[in-house]
Amino acid sequence: MSEIDIDELRKNFGRRLRIGFIGGGRDSVIGGTHLAAMRVDGFFELYAGVFSVDPTVSEATARAEFLDADRVYESFNEMAEKEALREDGIEVVLIAAPPHIHFEAAKVFLTKGIDVICEKPIAVSREQASQLDDLAQQQSRLFCLTHCYAGYPMVREARAMVRSGQLGKIRILEAELAAGDPGVSFEPKNPADRHWRFRENIMGKGAILGEVASHAHHLLHYIYGEEISAVSAEMSTFVPRREVYDNAYLTTRYHSGARGRIWGSYIAAGNDHGLCFRIYGELGGLQWHQEDPEVLWFKPIGGQAQRIARGYQNLSPWATRGSRFRPGHPEGYALAFANLYADFGCAVMARQLGLPYEQFYKALPNTSDGVVTMSLIEAAVESNCNDGRWQAVLSASSADSK
Amino acid sequence: MSEIDIDELRKNFGRRLRIGFIGGGRDSVIGGTHLAAMRVDGFFELYAGVFSVDPTVSEATARAEFLDADRVYESFNEMAEKEALREDGIEVVLIAAPPHIHFEAAKVFLTKGIDVICEKPIAVSREQASQLDDLAQQQSRLFCLTHCYAGYPMVREARAMVRSGQLGKIRILEAELAAGDPGVSFEPKNPADRHWRFRENIMGKGAILGEVASHAHHLLHYIYGEEISAVSAEMSTFVPRREVYDNAYLTTRYHSGARGRIWGSYIAAGNDHGLCFRIYGELGGLQWHQEDPEVLWFKPIGGQAQRIARGYQNLSPWATRGSRFRPGHPEGYALAFANLYADFGCAVMARQLGLPYEQFYKALPNTSDGVVTMSLIEAAVESNCNDGRWQAVLSASSADSK
Amino acid sequence: MSEIDIDELRKNFGRRLRIGFIGGGRDSVIGGTHLAAMRVDGFFELYAGVFSVDPTVSEATARAEFLDADRVYESFNEMAEKEALREDGIEVVLIAAPPHIHFEAAKVFLTKGIDVICEKPIAVSREQASQLDDLAQQQSRLFCLTHCYAGYPMVREARAMVRSGQLGKIRILEAELAAGDPGVSFEPKNPADRHWRFRENIMGKGAILGEVASHAHHLLHYIYGEEISAVSAEMSTFVPRREVYDNAYLTTRYHSGARGRIWGSYIAAGNDHGLCFRIYGELGGLQWHQEDPEVLWFKPIGGQAQRIARGYQNLSPWATRGSRFRPGHPEGYALAFANLYADFGCAVMARQLGLPYEQFYKALPNTSDGVVTMSLIEAAVESNCNDGRWQAVLSASSADSK
Amino acid sequence: MSEIDIDELRKNFGRRLRIGFIGGGRDSVIGGTHLAAMRVDGFFELYAGVFSVDPTVSEATARAEFLDADRVYESFNEMAEKEALREDGIEVVLIAAPPHIHFEAAKVFLTKGIDVICEKPIAVSREQASQLDDLAQQQSRLFCLTHCYAGYPMVREARAMVRSGQLGKIRILEAELAAGDPGVSFEPKNPADRHWRFRENIMGKGAILGEVASHAHHLLHYIYGEEISAVSAEMSTFVPRREVYDNAYLTTRYHSGARGRIWGSYIAAGNDHGLCFRIYGELGGLQWHQEDPEVLWFKPIGGQAQRIARGYQNLSPWATRGSRFRPGHPEGYALAFANLYADFGCAVMARQLGLPYEQFYKALPNTSDGVVTMSLIEAAVESNCNDGRWQAVLSASSADSK
Repeated sequence: MSEIDIDELRKNFGRRLRIGFIGGGRDSVIGGTHLAAMRVDGFFELYAGVFSVDPTVSEATARAEFLDADRVYESFNEMAEKEALREDGIEVVLIAAPPHIHFEAAKVFLTKGIDVICEKPIAVSREQASQLDDLAQQQSRLFCLTHCYAGYPMVREARAMVRSGQLGKIRILEAELAAGDPGVSFEPKNPADRHWRFRENIMGKGAILGEVASHAHHLLHYIYGEEISAVSAEMSTFVPRREVYDNAYLTTRYHSGARGRIWGSYIAAGNDHGLCFRIYGELGGLQWHQEDPEVLWFKPIGGQAQRIARGYQNLSPWATRGSRFRPGHPEGYALAFANLYADFGCAVMARQLGLPYEQFYKALPNTSDGVVTMSLIEAAVESNCNDGRWQAVLSASSADSK
Repeated sequence: MSEIDIDELRKNFGRRLRIGFIGGGRDSVIGGTHLAAMRVDGFFELYAGVFSVDPTVSEATARAEFLDADRVYESFNEMAEKEALREDGIEVVLIAAPPHIHFEAAKVFLTKGIDVICEKPIAVSREQASQLDDLAQQQSRLFCLTHCYAGYPMVREARAMVRSGQLGKIRILEAELAAGDPGVSFEPKNPADRHWRFRENIMGKGAILGEVASHAHHLLHYIYGEEISAVSAEMSTFVPRREVYDNAYLTTRYHSGARGRIWGSYIAAGNDHGLCFRIYGELGGLQWHQEDPEVLWFKPIGGQAQRIARGYQNLSPWATRGSRFRPGHPEGYALAFANLYADFGCAVMARQLGLPYEQFYKALPNTSDGVVTMSLIEAAVESNCNDGRWQAVLSASSADSK
Repeated sequence: MSEIDIDELRKNFGRRLRIGFIGGGRDSVIGGTHLAAMRVDGFFELYAGVFSVDPTVSEATARAEFLDADRVYESFNEMAEKEALREDGIEVVLIAAPPHIHFEAAKVFLTKGIDVICEKPIAVSREQASQLDDLAQQQSRLFCLTHCYAGYPMVREARAMVRSGQLGKIRILEAELAAGDPGVSFEPKNPADRHWRFRENIMGKGAILGEVASHAHHLLHYIYGEEISAVSAEMSTFVPRREVYDNAYLTTRYHSGARGRIWGSYIAAGNDHGLCFRIYGELGGLQWHQEDPEVLWFKPIGGQAQRIARGYQNLSPWATRGSRFRPGHPEGYALAFANLYADFGCAVMARQLGLPYEQFYKALPNTSDGVVTMSLIEAAVESNCNDGRWQAVLSASSADSK
Repeated sequence: MSEIDIDELRKNFGRRLRIGFIGGGRDSVIGGTHLAAMRVDGFFELYAGVFSVDPTVSEATARAEFLDADRVYESFNEMAEKEALREDGIEVVLIAAPPHIHFEAAKVFLTKGIDVICEKPIAVSREQASQLDDLAQQQSRLFCLTHCYAGYPMVREARAMVRSGQLGKIRILEAELAAGDPGVSFEPKNPADRHWRFRENIMGKGAILGEVASHAHHLLHYIYGEEISAVSAEMSTFVPRREVYDNAYLTTRYHSGARGRIWGSYIAAGNDHGLCFRIYGELGGLQWHQEDPEVLWFKPIGGQAQRIARGYQNLSPWATRGSRFRPGHPEGYALAFANLYADFGCAVMARQLGLPYEQFYKALPNTSDGVVTMSLIEAAVESNCNDGRWQAVLSASSADSK
């Protein structure tokens, strides 16, 4: 089966895909990112939305995005209901509301036969993640979990290098998302003023694992593929009045024999974004930092460090597919994110046209990634409550897991 | 006069601007960049085009961009004629064809009352540049010359720093665009196979100045504003069979007393992109490299180097306006380019709504920048033919200049 | 009490200090480093030695260093005995033999009234370290433990910054020495051919903690000063046939409430040296990498990153004392190491002249640092054998500790 | 002829070389650097000196360096006279006094049969440089011109790479030493208070070429070897009251057809040291910055950038000879400078023992390098006075040159 040419696919499809948003209004940080990422390649057109819990914001967003007035809804249930009935109804929905909404929203749209793009974490428990995994399969729907950093060409190159054996047998896997914005350094006296991200009753005490550590873990999982067998965790709260943990250290053991560490933090004061990974095998080590995303460093044992940059002909198809400009023209975060929309858009169009879509879909994080992350999170919480003792992590595919 | 809120402007305008393309088809490198940059913010929608001299390419591009069949034209004259008559005709045209086309194409569209976005160099002579400058004013049309690097937030921050006196009196200005792709390292034996960029009969022997050195010069001009008074030039040809110069060294003197150098090259073998500048004043020096565009380095005399990164609150309004993400999320080339489209889109919408548009338009390179660059180019060619002697550069505003 | 001028001290002392070496012959990696570091400032002259267990190497080293033939000894006991009797006997001894020799050698020379410079780890148990700590005090001898990275000016600046409160209350302390030379990636089939560093019977199974992790730990201890209260450890062996652990992960808790991690590794394949630290407090974070040692990065929360470079006037006296050249002239490893010899040489000369020597001695790692590191090591070994459970670390000053 | 083993050479010579200093006292910046560099390897011992024009400083320096009182002299003539008569007289002299002293001092010591280490620039005219070149040959004396940056292993690797053809035919050579210390940003009102470096009557108006630009030029000459055929120069004075030029731009043409630029500056405000070079050939480009001296970047055309670091086995003998530590242990400026002393020390010892010394001497800048630099300087001054016109540079070997 030969590769599908993307311009041919566009010509055959003949129009943009219709998408709707849950969340992502002008009062949200992530909304502008999704809009830009979605628009870069012109695969999608925004047609509908519940952009905010605040109807004024939701309507203002809709107008500034040139939407028809009757496509702004008051709830995701209403949107699912009405859009499913329209001839020109949305074909894809983005779920960018807080995590405790994800499960219910995803369920409704999957059931209505609408493909889903969902912000991480996929849900608030391993059980919910497993149900969505099953449901997507039953309904034959496509599902993209926006671990957006998986869209960077050099992350994809790392995946190709690790899986093709260029590092030899993998021994060490380290990743972190240790941030420290002033915005998260303080808790208001009045609990009602605290951000939903830091409320124990909504998010659980270990919310940091899903909110932050999950991106670090996902990078390693996306690249390596092997699962963690056990975890030892230390979680702490540093900021006064905070209800949840704001620093999480995980030490990990893999079924393959590899060892590693994951660090998620809100109190790495001064760090800008702080997402990075390092992977060491028998033959060398690989490093990548999200703040310098065009470059992957490979250091073979005994040899000179190799700076592997985006855009060169010696890269794998995984990296070249998501690469748009010649070397020396930095692409950055929005284009990495756009790669998820591009792959998902192509997959959805191809499937609608009855074409094989796996070539696009295989690069995307999906419900299965969500199950893997939630399994780790639940074991880590357990270890932390148990004096740091090693806790087994359920396998995504195990019978116990569902 | 208060600042116009962009979301309000969008809501009042109520739709996207209609744009047409001359060039930029699937057979062009720059086409994809313009498409992505134009789409990021959703201000423009592509409606018409002459995408290529090859009608098959032009039509294929149009279909893949979902255009109506009757909006694909055979010549820019036909497009100008017909679009000007349509109720839903294009309001803006992008001229991305080779430089010797720019003058005629721009003239036609300006005359038809259509605003122009034009690739650099603006034209092939100072005389042509001056005529376009006059015409744009007579026709009250907006004109954006896509010196795209002027869209980077940190270039704009440099402009704000230099102009507010943070470096003290400026003494030294250096810039270069020294590239060395394998693609330009060789000339075919058959002159007919050579790229138009390297043909003396089309481009003139000093074409490198407009193609490459102009970006380096424009960065300095955009930031500093003062004009060069005289130039000493050394131009050479290294690649066998090449008809034009492929390396240009300019040493410069400014009316202000500053000195500097500009380097444009096709034979800096191995360089990726190679665009950078350094500016030194009495109080310190400023550096920026396009390949690491989020960071501006300021080194005050006697003090620690200052890494000035995009996204922080201590930046000037010039830098924050074009900044989309929090620090640590690299933006890159496409978003810098998109800033030109955003400013131009807002300016065009504001003017159509009878609102002041200068707050958007002032950040954009325009016909006047084109005249300044063409003046330098003509003096440099003269010096190079005259044993490197200093040659006076005509001022953009001088009586002689028109 | 005013500071002692070093040139005055030199003039008053009127000659170089006489030093002898145990180990450090031409067959040792570290010997050349000690020779260069010792010579840079001209405080010491080599007079005697047992340079190697191989007498041929020992003699060849002595001749190449222009030593008198009767000052080359067969054992450290003989050297201590005979040198103590000479009028021109050595005043300082360097112990650069393998760790299991340190305790006996140090004891002999301290007892003979000779000041000691000793390679890390100080000994093979907490008990031995404590005994040396006591003995040095009883004998009123000076003792320098060559945690050489404490000689870098920017490490000393970090100490000054942390201790003066510039980071606010410290929350997170991370350090690592994760190396991966080809030289340590393989174990010979014949156990007799294995390096002493990797033999369980000589070094114990957790030798990596003293050999490698101790440098990482010492950096944090040197800078922060506070002690670790408990540790959770994961130690693994990756290289086939290896008798000892070759990767060690420690998670740490401090009495102060801070948390942290230490990583020591021989299997971070491809890493050059890999020593670095990161420290986060309420107000910002600090980073330093030994491979770029002139620069300390301070990132205040919410503010631009600050590149703090060696040689500037805004640095603390701790950093300026060990700084030799103007900014822009990199100093590197040998001069950092030389700073330990310089401080120790000045301390020894000052004490011999009856002057206060604390101003020099206070910057040096000593027996007390050795006790702290050995305490951590013993607790880490315990935790690793106990399913990763948290293990209390004995305090250096506790009654239990001796 | 096989390579001489350095330890064998040391053993056979059996003692350190006796050196004397002209200049380099405690009132000089460069003195401490020479002392450290000279001591690192233990090839030299300081025995005599005229350390300063101020006898108090000279004596204080001597005492702090443990010299005998009768080896401190009032003039270099006296020192040459008396040391030449002593059995234990100096065998090597360092000339670190201001440039207008170099010629007379070097002449005296060469004539007395004493080998010379001399600071740059070698003299104040091409004529003087040529005379020293002749004299050294007539007297069969060794002469090292301390263009100290030629001691960096990675500069030597660049030489090996360029000369072995790894870059193909060389096209572009750029170098600069553009500094901007606060110390040189101001001129006192009273001409008598101005530093000798900025006095026209002592140094000539173009002194910046010998003081600063000469290091940049020498790097290129050391690496490439080919001579410049013509130069176009622009020299300016920016600092008020300054008697000499403080910025020099040279554009260059080589006999080989290559082109290039050299920049020397005192007014690049904020730069730390600012020495760097870039060399482009048909096959790729090479870059090196003195402030990051362990790394040489090679960018082959069309290929990934190669970070070539010190200490690896794939380097040429030129780089490995001057490399002391394993990768990851930065060496820096003092050890690069020490490499000049090491090579010179070995050359002097070898010649005294009747052994071939070329293997050591060939790596060192000598009188011939001095002639080449002075030739360029005189042509540049001429071009600057002649409206920037191209001025021919005398060849070092031409009949006209002496």
